[in-house]
Amino acid sequence: MPLPVLMQLREDLLDLKGTGIGILEHSHRQPTYDRVLAEAVESCRVLGEVPDDFEILFVSGGATNQMALIPLNLLPDGGVADYPDTEVWSAKAIVEGRDAVPSATIAVPFEGKKFRYDHVPAVGEMTPTAGAAYMHYCSNNTVHGTRFHTPPIAAAGVPLVCDASSEIFGRPIDWSKHAMVYAAAQKHLGVAAMSLVIARRDLIRNPVRRLPSMFSYWSHATLESRINTPPTFAIHTAGLMFRWMISEGGAREFERRNDAKAALIYEIIDGSGGFYRGLSRPECRSPINISFRLQSEALDKRFIDEATRAELDGLAGHRDAGGIRASLYNAMPLEGAQALASFMRDFMRKNG
Amino acid sequence: MPLPVLMQLREDLLDLKGTGIGILEHSHRQPTYDRVLAEAVESCRVLGEVPDDFEILFVSGGATNQMALIPLNLLPDGGVADYPDTEVWSAKAIVEGRDAVPSATIAVPFEGKKFRYDHVPAVGEMTPTAGAAYMHYCSNNTVHGTRFHTPPIAAAGVPLVCDASSEIFGRPIDWSKHAMVYAAAQKHLGVAAMSLVIARRDLIRNPVRRLPSMFSYWSHATLESRINTPPTFAIHTAGLMFRWMISEGGAREFERRNDAKAALIYEIIDGSGGFYRGLSRPECRSPINISFRLQSEALDKRFIDEATRAELDGLAGHRDAGGIRASLYNAMPLEGAQALASFMRDFMRKNG
Repeated sequence: MPLPVLMQLREDLLDLKGTGIGILEHSHRQPTYDRVLAEAVESCRVLGEVPDDFEILFVSGGATNQMALIPLNLLPDGGVADYPDTEVWSAKAIVEGRDAVPSATIAVPFEGKKFRYDHVPAVGEMTPTAGAAYMHYCSNNTVHGTRFHTPPIAAAGVPLVCDASSEIFGRPIDWSKHAMVYAAAQKHLGVAAMSLVIARRDLIRNPVRRLPSMFSYWSHATLESRINTPPTFAIHTAGLMFRWMISEGGAREFERRNDAKAALIYEIIDGSGGFYRGLSRPECRSPINISFRLQSEALDKRFIDEATRAELDGLAGHRDAGGIRASLYNAMPLEGAQALASFMRDFMRKNG
Repeated sequence: MPLPVLMQLREDLLDLKGTGIGILEHSHRQPTYDRVLAEAVESCRVLGEVPDDFEILFVSGGATNQMALIPLNLLPDGGVADYPDTEVWSAKAIVEGRDAVPSATIAVPFEGKKFRYDHVPAVGEMTPTAGAAYMHYCSNNTVHGTRFHTPPIAAAGVPLVCDASSEIFGRPIDWSKHAMVYAAAQKHLGVAAMSLVIARRDLIRNPVRRLPSMFSYWSHATLESRINTPPTFAIHTAGLMFRWMISEGGAREFERRNDAKAALIYEIIDGSGGFYRGLSRPECRSPINISFRLQSEALDKRFIDEATRAELDGLAGHRDAGGIRASLYNAMPLEGAQALASFMRDFMRKNG
C-alpha cells in the first residue's frame, strides 16, 4: 500500500479529522462518519467516472460473498444466468452461485478449461443464453494471466456483471456495457473482507426473492451501506485509496503505467526465442498478472529461487498453473518491473 | 479502545512482527498471518475459557449477518426455532431470521413488548417449543437496560444460541448451557463488521441445507476462517483486545468492575425517592447499560444538556426508549462511572 495512505491511517487510529477520537471508535450514526462515507462514495464516483444511475455500495465480505449475493438478488428460481469460465475465480463464482440458488441454472457458455485457460472467449466464440437473468464474468484472470480487453457480449438485453477484484480502477470502466462491477477490497482498496459494489439502480431495485437485509443490495443502497454497523475502517481506507489514485492521475494513468510495466516483461518473453513461454495467448494478455514458464520445472524453480535471493519475491505461479507469475498491481512502481526485466535478461544469458 | 491496543495497531500498520510489512499487506496464506490467527484463537480460548469441543470462528459482517446465517445453518424448512423477544436486537433477529428462512417458523415464546421491555422472562414465564431446532436470545439488552442474569431455559435437548454482542467477556460464559455464543466485534473487540462466533462442533457440523461457502459455519471451521481473504485487520485487532482483557484480569475481573461501576449508578437511582426512575425491573438490571428517566421529558433534556457541558457524552436514551442511558462498557474505567454518579447527585440536589 502507498506509504501516504498508511501514515494517514496511523493518524486516524488516534484522531480522525481533528475530533480527538479514532476511526475505530466513532459511531457510524454521527456526522464525522457521515463525512467519511460521503468522501469515500464521492471519490469513488470521480475516480471511476461512475454515472449517476449507479449506486456505490460497500458490503461486508470479499468477492466470495458477492458470488452468493449476486444470484440471490438477481437469479430467480428456474432462471438461467451465463457464467463464462475463464479460470479459478470465475469457476468459484459458478460453484458459489449454484450453492446459493440450487433451483436455478448457471450456464457455462465458455469452458476455458478445455484450453488450459489460455484465453478468454473471442467475439463469436460463445453462444450466450437468450433471456438470461445476467451474465457474470471475471475481467482479469490472475492465475493464467488473461484479461478481457473488451467486455464479453451477452445476449440482447442481458445485464453484464463484472468481477474486477484484481484490476479495479487499473483502467477506465465502460459503464455503457455493464450493469454491475464489483471488487473485493484487499488487492487495490486496502482492507480485506469488504467489497465495493457498483450497480445500476434498476438492476438491484427489486431483488428476485425475499432476503434478509444484509443480503439485499437494495437494502444496502437505501440505507447507505449502513444497515448495521458497517466496515467503517475498510470504507475509510478505501476512501483514502481512491483519493490517492486520483492524485496519481486516475484510472487512465494507471492503465498507462500498467501497460508500460507489462510491456517490459512481455517484450522479453516474446524476444526470448522460447526461453520464456507465456501461458496466455497474446491477444488476451493481462498487464496485471504475467504468467510464463521456462523449459522445465527444474529451471522454473531455479528462476524463482535466484529471484528470491535478488529480493524479487512472490514469483511462484499459482498452484493451479505452476510456472512463474509476475503480479504488477497498480501500486507497484515502474522500477519494480524494470528490476524484474533486468533479472530475466540476466537469467536467460546465464541459462539460455 | 485501550490506548496500548491502538498504539500497537499503529506499529502493525507499518511493520507486523518485525517483518517490515504491515498487517494490511500480509498474505493470509503466509506464516506471519498463521501466527496472527493462531494467537487470536488461542487468546480467545483462554479469555473465554472455551471448551475444546467449541470452534472459534471469525466471520465477515456484524450481528445482523449472523441473524441470517444462524437459521440458514440450523433451521430446516418446516422447522421451528424459539426467539424470546426482549428488545430491539432480539426483535431484529426475528425479522432477519424469517426473511432468511421463510419456509420455517420463528416462534416467540416471550413477547417483551407487552411489558415495555422492562424485564426478560423469569423462570417459568415462557413455554419453550418442544423439539425446536434451537432457542436464540440476546443476553444483554442495550436500549432498556435489561440482562439475563442466568440463561433462558429452552425445551429439553434444544440448543441455546446467544447474541452477546454488547457484553462479550464482560462476565464468564456458562458453556454447559450454550451451544453457540456470538458477538459483533464493534463494541468490545475493536473493528466493526466482523463477528466472533463460538459454536459447538456438533451443532454446526451438518448445515440443514445446501449453502454457499461463506454462509456455512462448518466451511469457516474447516478452513480456519479463511475460505477467502479473511478480515485480517479485524482478526488481528480482536487478538490484541483479547490479550488486553487477559492482562487486565479476564472476564471475572471485568464482571467485578462492571458490577462496581453499575452499583454506583443504581444506588443513586434507588435512593433518589423517584427523582430517577429505572426503566427495567431490579432483578433484570444490566450492569452495562443503565436506562432511566426523570419526571418529565423536559427534565430529561436538561439532564442530558448539562451532562454534555460537563463532558459526560452519549447519555441520550435510544430512540426506542427515550430518557437517559448510561453505557458502562468493559473498557470504561471506574472514574467514568464516579464522574457520572457525582453529576447525578448534583443534578438531583439542584432540581429535586
